[in-house]
Amino acid sequence: MEVSVPHVGFNGRWLRVNLSTNEIKVEEVPEEIYRTYLGGRGFCAYILFKELKPGIDPLSPENKLVFAVSAITGAPIAGVNRVSVAAKSPLTGTYGEAEAGGFFAVEMKFAGFDAVILEGVSEKPTYLWVKDGHAELRDASRLWGKTTKETAKAIKEELGEESARVACIGPAGEKLVKFANVMFDNRYAAGRGGLGAVMGSKKLKAVVVRGTRRPFEFHDVRKLVEISRWFNENWRKHPGAVSRSTYGTPELVKPLSIDGTLPTLNFRGGSFDGADLISGETLNKTILVGREGCFACPLRCKAVVKAGPPYETDPAYGGPEYETIASFGSLCGVRDLNAVAYANQICNAYGVDTISAGVAVAFAMELFERGVITELETDGLKLRFGDADAMIKLLLKIVNREGFGNVLAEGVKRASEIIGKGSEKYAMHVKGREVPMHEPRSKVGVGLQYALSPIGADHLQAPHDPTYMREREDLKSLGIARAVDRLDIGPEKVRAVYYGMLWWGLGDCLGICRFTVLPHSAGVLTPNHVVEIVNAVTGWQISLWELMKASERALNLIRCFNIREGFTAKDDVLPDRFFEELEFGARKGQKLDREKFYEAIRLFYEMAGWDHEGRPTKAKLYELGLGWVADEIYKS
Amino acid sequence: MEVSVPHVGFNGRWLRVNLSTNEIKVEEVPEEIYRTYLGGRGFCAYILFKELKPGIDPLSPENKLVFAVSAITGAPIAGVNRVSVAAKSPLTGTYGEAEAGGFFAVEMKFAGFDAVILEGVSEKPTYLWVKDGHAELRDASRLWGKTTKETAKAIKEELGEESARVACIGPAGEKLVKFANVMFDNRYAAGRGGLGAVMGSKKLKAVVVRGTRRPFEFHDVRKLVEISRWFNENWRKHPGAVSRSTYGTPELVKPLSIDGTLPTLNFRGGSFDGADLISGETLNKTILVGREGCFACPLRCKAVVKAGPPYETDPAYGGPEYETIASFGSLCGVRDLNAVAYANQICNAYGVDTISAGVAVAFAMELFERGVITELETDGLKLRFGDADAMIKLLLKIVNREGFGNVLAEGVKRASEIIGKGSEKYAMHVKGREVPMHEPRSKVGVGLQYALSPIGADHLQAPHDPTYMREREDLKSLGIARAVDRLDIGPEKVRAVYYGMLWWGLGDCLGICRFTVLPHSAGVLTPNHVVEIVNAVTGWQISLWELMKASERALNLIRCFNIREGFTAKDDVLPDRFFEELEFGARKGQKLDREKFYEAIRLFYEMAGWDHEGRPTKAKLYELGLGWVADEIYKS
Repeated sequence: MEVSVPHVGFNGRWLRVNLSTNEIKVEEVPEEIYRTYLGGRGFCAYILFKELKPGIDPLSPENKLVFAVSAITGAPIAGVNRVSVAAKSPLTGTYGEAEAGGFFAVEMKFAGFDAVILEGVSEKPTYLWVKDGHAELRDASRLWGKTTKETAKAIKEELGEESARVACIGPAGEKLVKFANVMFDNRYAAGRGGLGAVMGSKKLKAVVVRGTRRPFEFHDVRKLVEISRWFNENWRKHPGAVSRSTYGTPELVKPLSIDGTLPTLNFRGGSFDGADLISGETLNKTILVGREGCFACPLRCKAVVKAGPPYETDPAYGGPEYETIASFGSLCGVRDLNAVAYANQICNAYGVDTISAGVAVAFAMELFERGVITELETDGLKLRFGDADAMIKLLLKIVNREGFGNVLAEGVKRASEIIGKGSEKYAMHVKGREVPMHEPRSKVGVGLQYALSPIGADHLQAPHDPTYMREREDLKSLGIARAVDRLDIGPEKVRAVYYGMLWWGLGDCLGICRFTVLPHSAGVLTPNHVVEIVNAVTGWQISLWELMKASERALNLIRCFNIREGFTAKDDVLPDRFFEELEFGARKGQKLDREKFYEAIRLFYEMAGWDHEGRPTKAKLYELGLGWVADEIYKS
Repeated sequence: MEVSVPHVGFNGRWLRVNLSTNEIKVEEVPEEIYRTYLGGRGFCAYILFKELKPGIDPLSPENKLVFAVSAITGAPIAGVNRVSVAAKSPLTGTYGEAEAGGFFAVEMKFAGFDAVILEGVSEKPTYLWVKDGHAELRDASRLWGKTTKETAKAIKEELGEESARVACIGPAGEKLVKFANVMFDNRYAAGRGGLGAVMGSKKLKAVVVRGTRRPFEFHDVRKLVEISRWFNENWRKHPGAVSRSTYGTPELVKPLSIDGTLPTLNFRGGSFDGADLISGETLNKTILVGREGCFACPLRCKAVVKAGPPYETDPAYGGPEYETIASFGSLCGVRDLNAVAYANQICNAYGVDTISAGVAVAFAMELFERGVITELETDGLKLRFGDADAMIKLLLKIVNREGFGNVLAEGVKRASEIIGKGSEKYAMHVKGREVPMHEPRSKVGVGLQYALSPIGADHLQAPHDPTYMREREDLKSLGIARAVDRLDIGPEKVRAVYYGMLWWGLGDCLGICRFTVLPHSAGVLTPNHVVEIVNAVTGWQISLWELMKASERALNLIRCFNIREGFTAKDDVLPDRFFEELEFGARKGQKLDREKFYEAIRLFYEMAGWDHEGRPTKAKLYELGLGWVADEIYKS
């Protein structure tokens, strides 16, 4: 299985591994597939729609787990080297997908494969080792039960490959926690939707990659070096990029609290009086011991922290992002940054999504405070908002599936169904996936993307409303010429979210980060840069029109995947709480208008070429070259 | 009315001239309008939808005539300097628009105005003189009745401005021939839909422009020079461009006849046994005396001819294009190239569209041969196919509105209604506009664009089927990755025509030629070059996505204009003949399948975001930022 000749990046090889039979196959994939689907989300959607039988149990051998990089992975440019992981999600039952930064994507590309498709289930714990075009399955029995750090260390030692990159699950994935992660090098997470549980269900402990040479030629190296140099010389001119580099995502904690949009006490309010104590500024002053980043990126936006007793943490697990600080901090009312950092470490070590975990804890706290559950159900824990110790104890129960933790490990939707007693009202999720740390009542575009996201509540489907409120060159390049107010829910907002979903979806097809490239606060590279990068790598004369259409193709493919699973317009909904007033904070009293909100959803459908059930029309599928999908969705 | 300061190209001035009151106004137009509508077709559609009352008589003072250039006009690059002319069309009753090459567009831009809007009606013949930001109306009484060449000459002498550029009408425009042209420098025509009649109805003989300096700065001159140099150095590598440069559009005559798609004898057949005699090769060998081209273009695709007696022609009128050779040649069965050249000269001198005129003659010939009309109706002319002399005589009657010519001057649709007796069957038009010289029975995509064109039958709405049959880098940039067979009328063809209409429509918004830039046989510059040119001129960070959306915006605006005039799906039809077999030629027996054809039209609607009546949905209009149009179209 030697990669014999250098191949260009867009005409590559996929690796197919059947864990039931130990069969390993290399598939040569034609250029047309690369240009049509680009990579990442595009590859995953293509493979899963084509290959998964409808209605399967996500944790059964019939599910498939895909790791995919893109046509441009390996380009020496900041923020274009993320990896996608996908499977049918055990958390939502929809298509499931997550992306991670770091170094795995490039290493996987250099190891010779642009997609790794894992099928079946292994008899005993195993891991996949891929190096320079060779692939083998190895025994992972002695790794079972180990944390992610222990696992990565043990594998590298066993292989004698210190530079290998390790994607693995922790004990939570093994125990099929429904929001278990796939962790990369202990601290980059493909974090949502329970893909780690899929990996666990397959008894696959890790996928390990090493590539010692680039297996393809860039079409125009000079252009790539030029863009890279331009980026390195210019990113400091963007205040957002400098701030992101200095504080990372935790920079958001304080301003969002002041703004009244920091999710607090399970989304009851939007300002947190302990925000200062858990802010990015405080983090930098107290527990920060270093910064790190991803391949080729000078921003190094990720904090490395070391908290002291009683919540002592290991810098090997990185540090908490904004989402983590908010979900374990303000959402649980916890003002102890050390405890938040410790919760982050537990999540990374055991391998669970910090958002879902934090929302699950906050959910339990609200139920407890309201008396819906008592110490009888919580194994004696007094789950009061603000109690850091109780939070940590409950989190450990979740990742170990112990006692009440075993209930919460199902995610708040299923947990609320188990608990009953009206608890559903406090379960903050869309399609079973826990709501991230952005308040839709004051950023209604975020609410639209939560409801419309094909993977359940997600904050990375489109730029957020404050971005639409500024005239930005990069958004203008897409035709979003005018600022749209955050509270506006009219046609202009719907269009902005629609174009935004195509645009950020393109990021997931190409493996592009929101911070360096796409129109985020820290955005530096523009949409036309993305076109230049793709063309410089591949030699295609591709346009942003074609790229956006590829993204639209992936979105519609995923939408059809979900339709085939029975999802319809009735599932594109938000929790009731968002139609009720914010109880406290700077935006107290703000709420979403239910009628206008669902009117906007219907308008979105129509803009997207979907019918009133949210189903892509035949014409839309034909337009996107997805006639084969139309044949399946519209078969009688 | 001095243009006091240099302004950037995209933030310009429009000139509004009321011919009834002699009022002349300069309007400062904000950048947003430029970026939203780009220019050309976009400006015209915006102005006419906004300002014209529905239901007006196109030849009344209430109609407005617009000349428009674009944000990039003036760029020193081949093929990006066309001018658009528009008004409600007296031929079709739809929105009417035509483009012309040459030098007028750049001169108009340099004269200080990106749009000239002509309103009302002058009491006596007049012409508009615009120089370096000054504008005045001048008496044209002594010019009335003159040919286009005489007019241009007289005006330049009167003004003492040899370098001025003259757009004028000939006697046919004065006499309101329904397919009268606006002629530029005698030989570049804004040629279809009867805009010359609108000009005549306003007693406006000419619009004359002169600009001695560029009234704006390019954002990035170096880039423009680089692209221009690249074009000049590389166009000869494209066989299509070399051939186009050598033979011009007449190069098509022979291969299309061999292919069986040269419209012959009023579309009865597709091969012409006299094709060799009227081919581009023959033209070059016999009557060619020179070549000329447009601003900054090295291709010089336009023939200058001098035919000998009895059809002696003046090189000042240029030479016949392919459309002209086919419509007066094969379509009328005429194999005398001199007679064709002479017909071309009559059209250019009197100012009528050569396609409509040729189709009108061929229509009359078929009626005569079938005995539907006789010498009683034709003022004694024996109108037999192939009779060059009869053709010329009838043409002179048309341009002078004499006798039977007065009937045909109404266009074949109205003429057939006047004649009756089943003559409608032989009137080859869509929405009243005569069908151009491309055979839809063997290039079904051409049939789709004929039916869907918002200005009536037109061959410049989208690339033709043979283009879709080749994998081309430029079409691939739009996502047309695969060749689509010319006879295919399925979803892939519909998509190709849909994307193609947006793409070529963009050309009309920006004033771009089909030959140098867009994906034609001779295409050299790619879609991404177009993006670079726009950005180099304007400094915008615009993308092809935004540009294509601007084109879609213009198309939908025009569609709504027509809807407001009462046009619906019932008007998106082809003449019955195309659903009958080709009677002779290499593709004898081929025909369009009526059911599949209208199925394709419906699929196009759905792809385009139009309802089953072909009406853009509210959602589509909102998506394009045309909420103000939705308000009008959907008002109760």
